[in-house]
Amino acid sequence: VAGLGSYRSRLDIVADILLVASRRAKKTQIMYQANLSHKLLTKYLTEIRKAYLISFERKERCYVLTSRGQEFLERYKDYSRHNKHVEKGLNDVRVKRKALEELYSSR
Amino acid sequence: VAGLGSYRSRLDIVADILLVASRRAKKTQIMYQANLSHKLLTKYLTEIRKAYLISFERKERCYVLTSRGQEFLERYKDYSRHNKHVEKGLNDVRVKRKALEELYSSR
Repeated sequence: VAGLGSYRSRLDIVADILLVASRRAKKTQIMYQANLSHKLLTKYLTEIRKAYLISFERKERCYVLTSRGQEFLERYKDYSRHNKHVEKGLNDVRVKRKALEELYSSR
Repeated sequence: VAGLGSYRSRLDIVADILLVASRRAKKTQIMYQANLSHKLLTKYLTEIRKAYLISFERKERCYVLTSRGQEFLERYKDYSRHNKHVEKGLNDVRVKRKALEELYSSR
């Protein structure tokens, strides 16, 4: 039973960026708070803007969340909560299976 | 996210055999009710007896569950219930992730 690991997926990174931008943020703030290289952040920001999840305010040079970005973030929180719950359940099932296998194989 | 598929695992087969034997059964009854070839059943029965999950009553030529076999079956039911629950949860998480990915990639 693989997957659902603990590394940051693309979705996790997008959510991290949006979380920082939800408090209005300049690029450098996002870079540090979302823990991303300048290069990677630039790539993500381009994609995220194309998906209309954030917008850029030229005057103050900062990023803000769109309502679509807000929706993404809310759905992400729900997804993340369920994901953690399922990971725990998956682990319980593995423990139960191991106990059964031991009951079957110990002679 | 792989695994936890719908094929019969080794544990599922053992549990199917034990379920039939829990009602006292002859080899042919187990074969048909657990849906196994004679060859495969013979292999499993040898293992299951070595693990002290069933015993063979020579006089009536039938298999019966030991208390250890009873314990296996009870634990298996609990495991199976949790497994189904987690599979459902895993599927929900996949649906939620897909919706997020669409929100991110649709432009």
